[in-house]
Amino acid sequence: MNLFETTIKPRFYETDGLGHISNTVIPAWFEIGRTEFLSSLAGEKRTWLTASVQIDYVAETFYGTDVTVRITGAKPGNSSLTLYCEILQEGRVTVRGSSVLVHMSDDRSGSARIPDAVREALASAGNST
Amino acid sequence: MNLFETTIKPRFYETDGLGHISNTVIPAWFEIGRTEFLSSLAGEKRTWLTASVQIDYVAETFYGTDVTVRITGAKPGNSSLTLYCEILQEGRVTVRGSSVLVHMSDDRSGSARIPDAVREALASAGNST
Amino acid sequence: MNLFETTIKPRFYETDGLGHISNTVIPAWFEIGRTEFLSSLAGEKRTWLTASVQIDYVAETFYGTDVTVRITGAKPGNSSLTLYCEILQEGRVTVRGSSVLVHMSDDRSGSARIPDAVREALASAGNST
Amino acid sequence: MNLFETTIKPRFYETDGLGHISNTVIPAWFEIGRTEFLSSLAGEKRTWLTASVQIDYVAETFYGTDVTVRITGAKPGNSSLTLYCEILQEGRVTVRGSSVLVHMSDDRSGSARIPDAVREALASAGNST
Repeated sequence: MNLFETTIKPRFYETDGLGHISNTVIPAWFEIGRTEFLSSLAGEKRTWLTASVQIDYVAETFYGTDVTVRITGAKPGNSSLTLYCEILQEGRVTVRGSSVLVHMSDDRSGSARIPDAVREALASAGNST
Repeated sequence: MNLFETTIKPRFYETDGLGHISNTVIPAWFEIGRTEFLSSLAGEKRTWLTASVQIDYVAETFYGTDVTVRITGAKPGNSSLTLYCEILQEGRVTVRGSSVLVHMSDDRSGSARIPDAVREALASAGNST
Repeated sequence: MNLFETTIKPRFYETDGLGHISNTVIPAWFEIGRTEFLSSLAGEKRTWLTASVQIDYVAETFYGTDVTVRITGAKPGNSSLTLYCEILQEGRVTVRGSSVLVHMSDDRSGSARIPDAVREALASAGNST
Repeated sequence: MNLFETTIKPRFYETDGLGHISNTVIPAWFEIGRTEFLSSLAGEKRTWLTASVQIDYVAETFYGTDVTVRITGAKPGNSSLTLYCEILQEGRVTVRGSSVLVHMSDDRSGSARIPDAVREALASAGNST
């Protein structure tokens, strides 16, 4: 499944000098994917806190060709949302990961149930692609 | 338990502009802790690949006071090593995480059993602190 | 004049949280432009050291739309090369800068005269665009 | 002269993989020095915009030992302030630079004359060290 995709052009200063993308850069690229995916959803802009991140470095990612950050799944709980992601380069998965986000109340004082409009947008993202 | 500690001074450009350290910065701080810990071990310099990283954002980390990155555990397998880490600020844990590293052979062509000298150094790091 | 252009998509974590690109990010974007420009030149790959950088922040650069990094001039000396750059967003110049690079000898032991092939490539870059 | 000093511990991921600090990192370190210096001045907290930055890479900066960022001079104009900086490592200057900042009015709508309290603080910073 594929809920969302965005393209990132690796930058030379993100490498270790030998053309490999540094491990420390990958979590930032995942955040780009998450941020753009959540912004793309229907409904008013929500606030999400990142509760946890899990990343598997499956293969080296290189400088020189674009990468695709793909949101491959979204599981809403009550106020939390688990997003599954992959980073691909030249058709090959180089990173797999997931992240748990917490949906904040409008006044940002605490967590709050994910609104139905967002649940529907998540579901239709899965159907439309 | 506490195998190793290093101090990091947050930098203003690592914040979101409101004084909170950005989520994308935390994995890089963990890498600093891991790198310094592994460099501190007895024995010749080894090569380690990062296979995976897991991070729980327990509480906000702020600009303005130093943080401590602490290696709280190290479990060697055959060629893999799991390191457990915490980030503390003013005595409070703000981040907990773990990382799986793979020990590479001397010619870096593949993984290799972690040498006994490194196992002993890991064990004595745990005892001496 | 316009010797070279590349496009950069600003990333959310490069902002100050309010949508403005941080000042510390701009010099890195200039380096992307310089690196890609020099790689695009005819002739074997050369090594260049950055001797100095000068940047004028003309206007705010924002998150949300792509920026163009443009090399607007190139003045070769004997072994040094001055590159002039602009960053544009939505047709508006937001940054102007220049950088002095030093061409290194093949064994990287010191500076060396810029080869004629590179001088010709610099000149034709200016003519062809 | 030496108006202010702060210490920075280079981080492994700030290198090119060979132990040299990347050029793109240096402007960020200068900003740390400027930010801490301006925060250290007497008087209420002011807002400054960075108008320009100039950096000379005098020598390689390395991973492995702390660096000192030193503010070596401060020339206030009407609403602008030029700060001169050096980065030192093991007693050797590796970077020299300057930056022009613009003092903003309290409502941040435009530039405003630097208050006398700040001018006096700048002058006494020069005298006391």
